[in-house]
Amino acid sequence: MIKKILIVGGVAGGASAAARCRRLNEHADIIMYERGPVVSFSNCCLPYHISGAMEEDKLILMTPDKFKAWFNIDARINSNVIAVNSDEKYIEVENTITGDVTKEYFDALVLSPGSNPITPRFNGLEDMPHYCLKTVPDVSKIMSFITTNSPRHITVVGGGFIGLEAAENLRERGIEVTLIEGSDQIIPFVDKEMSFIGQSELVSHGVEVILNTRVESFAKGKVILQTGGEIETDAVILAIGVIPATGFLKGSRVDLTEKGYIKVDENYQTSAKSIYAAGDAILVSHQITGEKIPLAMAGPANKQGRLIADHINGRQILNKGYIGSGVVKLFNMNIASTGMSEKTLKNSGIDYDVAYAAPPSIVGIMPGMNLVYSKLIFEKQTGRILGAQFASRGASDKRADVVATAIKANMTVEDLADLELCYAPSFGTGKDVVNKIGYVASNLNDGSVEQVRFTELYSLLAYGEQVIDVREEVEYAAGRLKGTRNIPMSSLRSRLDELDMNRTVYVHCRTGERSYNMTRMLKSHGFDAKNVAGSYEFTRIYEETQQNIDPSRENILIGAALGCASDFGE
Amino acid sequence: MIKKILIVGGVAGGASAAARCRRLNEHADIIMYERGPVVSFSNCCLPYHISGAMEEDKLILMTPDKFKAWFNIDARINSNVIAVNSDEKYIEVENTITGDVTKEYFDALVLSPGSNPITPRFNGLEDMPHYCLKTVPDVSKIMSFITTNSPRHITVVGGGFIGLEAAENLRERGIEVTLIEGSDQIIPFVDKEMSFIGQSELVSHGVEVILNTRVESFAKGKVILQTGGEIETDAVILAIGVIPATGFLKGSRVDLTEKGYIKVDENYQTSAKSIYAAGDAILVSHQITGEKIPLAMAGPANKQGRLIADHINGRQILNKGYIGSGVVKLFNMNIASTGMSEKTLKNSGIDYDVAYAAPPSIVGIMPGMNLVYSKLIFEKQTGRILGAQFASRGASDKRADVVATAIKANMTVEDLADLELCYAPSFGTGKDVVNKIGYVASNLNDGSVEQVRFTELYSLLAYGEQVIDVREEVEYAAGRLKGTRNIPMSSLRSRLDELDMNRTVYVHCRTGERSYNMTRMLKSHGFDAKNVAGSYEFTRIYEETQQNIDPSRENILIGAALGCASDFGE
Repeated sequence: MIKKILIVGGVAGGASAAARCRRLNEHADIIMYERGPVVSFSNCCLPYHISGAMEEDKLILMTPDKFKAWFNIDARINSNVIAVNSDEKYIEVENTITGDVTKEYFDALVLSPGSNPITPRFNGLEDMPHYCLKTVPDVSKIMSFITTNSPRHITVVGGGFIGLEAAENLRERGIEVTLIEGSDQIIPFVDKEMSFIGQSELVSHGVEVILNTRVESFAKGKVILQTGGEIETDAVILAIGVIPATGFLKGSRVDLTEKGYIKVDENYQTSAKSIYAAGDAILVSHQITGEKIPLAMAGPANKQGRLIADHINGRQILNKGYIGSGVVKLFNMNIASTGMSEKTLKNSGIDYDVAYAAPPSIVGIMPGMNLVYSKLIFEKQTGRILGAQFASRGASDKRADVVATAIKANMTVEDLADLELCYAPSFGTGKDVVNKIGYVASNLNDGSVEQVRFTELYSLLAYGEQVIDVREEVEYAAGRLKGTRNIPMSSLRSRLDELDMNRTVYVHCRTGERSYNMTRMLKSHGFDAKNVAGSYEFTRIYEETQQNIDPSRENILIGAALGCASDFGE
Repeated sequence: MIKKILIVGGVAGGASAAARCRRLNEHADIIMYERGPVVSFSNCCLPYHISGAMEEDKLILMTPDKFKAWFNIDARINSNVIAVNSDEKYIEVENTITGDVTKEYFDALVLSPGSNPITPRFNGLEDMPHYCLKTVPDVSKIMSFITTNSPRHITVVGGGFIGLEAAENLRERGIEVTLIEGSDQIIPFVDKEMSFIGQSELVSHGVEVILNTRVESFAKGKVILQTGGEIETDAVILAIGVIPATGFLKGSRVDLTEKGYIKVDENYQTSAKSIYAAGDAILVSHQITGEKIPLAMAGPANKQGRLIADHINGRQILNKGYIGSGVVKLFNMNIASTGMSEKTLKNSGIDYDVAYAAPPSIVGIMPGMNLVYSKLIFEKQTGRILGAQFASRGASDKRADVVATAIKANMTVEDLADLELCYAPSFGTGKDVVNKIGYVASNLNDGSVEQVRFTELYSLLAYGEQVIDVREEVEYAAGRLKGTRNIPMSSLRSRLDELDMNRTVYVHCRTGERSYNMTRMLKSHGFDAKNVAGSYEFTRIYEETQQNIDPSRENILIGAALGCASDFGE
């Protein structure tokens, strides 16, 4: 039996490994090293301290005293592991307060060092109060700045999880916020058109979002952009990204990738004997592509820590690969994703198709109903599910969780349609969102319907194609797309002679359900008909967000939307 | 191609079949018959009209005019199908207004007649205003009674979905409610100990719940019980159960079971050629046992309607069998279930085990955290998941949906532990409830821990067994079980000499997590230790509910619970 287990890192992966090691091995010495002043804090909750949703003392889940009393684990804070000798099996630890360096031998070593925020050396950064948001001390510094200086405006750089949650929580505090993102979208774990739904929510809550823009430098009281623009601001939060905190492994026999990630096998063993690694600092295998990817998330880190403890203690472990699931709350909008996005599929060589739908989150006539903007990505022919994205003021997370389970089980779109999910009027609909997106995908996959995407409407309308809006007249009057013709579903069968049979008929409605019905009908009458996937609702949000990004752009939207359309055949 | 399709029943299964038939076959004549005055109403929403959560006109989803305009479907209300001639392929339809009977021939016939509420011929029923809650006219009558008579008290008979939702919505209106149930539990789709969590919520909102009691008769202003007791009441809602509305099939070649259910094959075809059936009136095959069961739920009915339309139109369909998933909201408590319960497993011959857990719904330190009382049932040895039940003020439905997907995919408890579910602090925890119950079950299944159930505590304590409560002293002081000894986890390792090594040590804590750690520890030190599954939290609710049922019973509970225990090692 293993006698001494050392663990580098005392947050998700490290703390999980430590506790599980103790459960499986009561008699081993277990020492856990954390370079910061606190162990086992909830880094995911840090942003919520800014808005006041959570008190600072609650962020710290465990103390060294508790680790000792409850698990007989020796948790050492302010202990920076600076070197690993994998041949002689010892590590060197620097006490960050005293500077003393000590040596500790191990039988098994678990590396869960996490990552460090990237802080480029911008010119003028020293003139601007700037913060990261990765640790409890980070958030303390931000709070101290806010309470001392009552800032009017703060700039957040980076539109990933941390940047988004920082922006939301600053805004909730009443501070003006500008979010700057270098790429063409925020919320990187979803595709661009889905990210626009979240962006729209941020904008409607007063957050200014600037895409395709990088910071050039800083000056007193302002951010200078590479575009030449300037933003007057009182402080900056840098949430640009992270790099694995693996510098201390240089010179050890633990192999790293070029970018510094630790290479592990299917048992989370590194290239060095008896040394394991977990969390943000490793690369994992993707279940679908087999590709090695980083996955900086708490859930996988916890799981890896537990599995490593199992393997150290002689148990076989299950590692089917990772798919990546995530969710973010932006004010009232919940955006969830699982599996592959189109972005990650681009170079995979997998032949895929995409289904869109926007079914109600709960029964349409119940109070609290919201649409669930849904995107399902599946492999052509086989129908194998590859990924899904959901955005809603209702429950997006549960739909993504169901699809995550389906992907793990290698299910197909037909299997999604077949699922028996819980239904009562307050929780969903008789056919749940997941069933419905499964139906839409099945119809595409078996050739029952052909589609174009709503993003293709721009060029279809520009070329004067025959685009029919089959919503009712009252809906069309309230909001519509320039260049479309309104023939409501309720009269289309008797007005077929108004259509040009020699040209393709593109059909859209509010969410794609009525237009699907009408596309089928038109095909039966000999028309070449295509459904516009995403229909008016997706187009409206996309166009509104584009207008916000570039107000000088030609607007294809007239009016807006007419609330719930459950009276209109959906 | 089929030319004429007749559909009996215009709600879930019938309406779905009709719409899908139209999509697949633009040119067929489709006639849908509904014996009531409205088609396609939301029967699941009916109870919510009572509390005022929903207006009556919204209950009706579709009208015959809309069916005609949108789908070119001839929907005929007040049309009672009274006979089916399967040899000559026609039906006889009675107009319930005029009494006229007409004959209609078909190429394909879909039977979705639903069920009728059971109304036993109680003595004195004529002296008591009494109602069912199955149709729009039913709910109109109830509302008319309430608004005219302003009743002080209403009695609901039957603790299934309808009875529960009726009780909740009457109470929400401020009416006093007594719910009478003949068996030993309400919420029949979960096991008794889980039903107690819902019962506790009803009681705390002022609903009186009486179990193990049947109605004997009625008199003016009162219900007389078989126990001899009486309840003063102003009206009664009878939600005792339903029977298939298949009387009109007697004499046809459509085979029925003894209880009147329609027998169908895997394609939902009845024993008669070209006649299909769906919904509450059929028996379906259980995916796990292969047993034929009724499943009176909207989701399966919708799905069956759609699949029948596919089969009528020459498509192959997928029918892997059913598992049954359901959820009910009782005030703030959400109770969800999927797959088999212990009750349904009793005579199955399957060797199963049960895991309990009560993890937090979201990160424990976030506002809005609630425990998710969780029960997972799995096959011994194989670990195959058989069923799960969740009760929480947080999201129960999403956990049941994930397990429902896992059961459909024949996953094991190890697979549950391996799932990658969406996590952010507002939605769940790094290891989600489903992961955690998967871990608990895995530990049981691989022999890492032995357990007794919390319901066994009663006899263990009565026999003076060694039951150790490892919660912290402050928790024990706030509430505990008589006869238990408190040795907190934080000091147990140094107080092993206080335990009797010659006797089994039964260990419990708040939710079973700390006691699991301590059970492992004690075993390593040579003790025969068993974890008390369900621990204090499940016991507390069980005992409180038992006290409510029978106040004369000896109470094993002293004090109550001490809120969230995230500070105490869970």
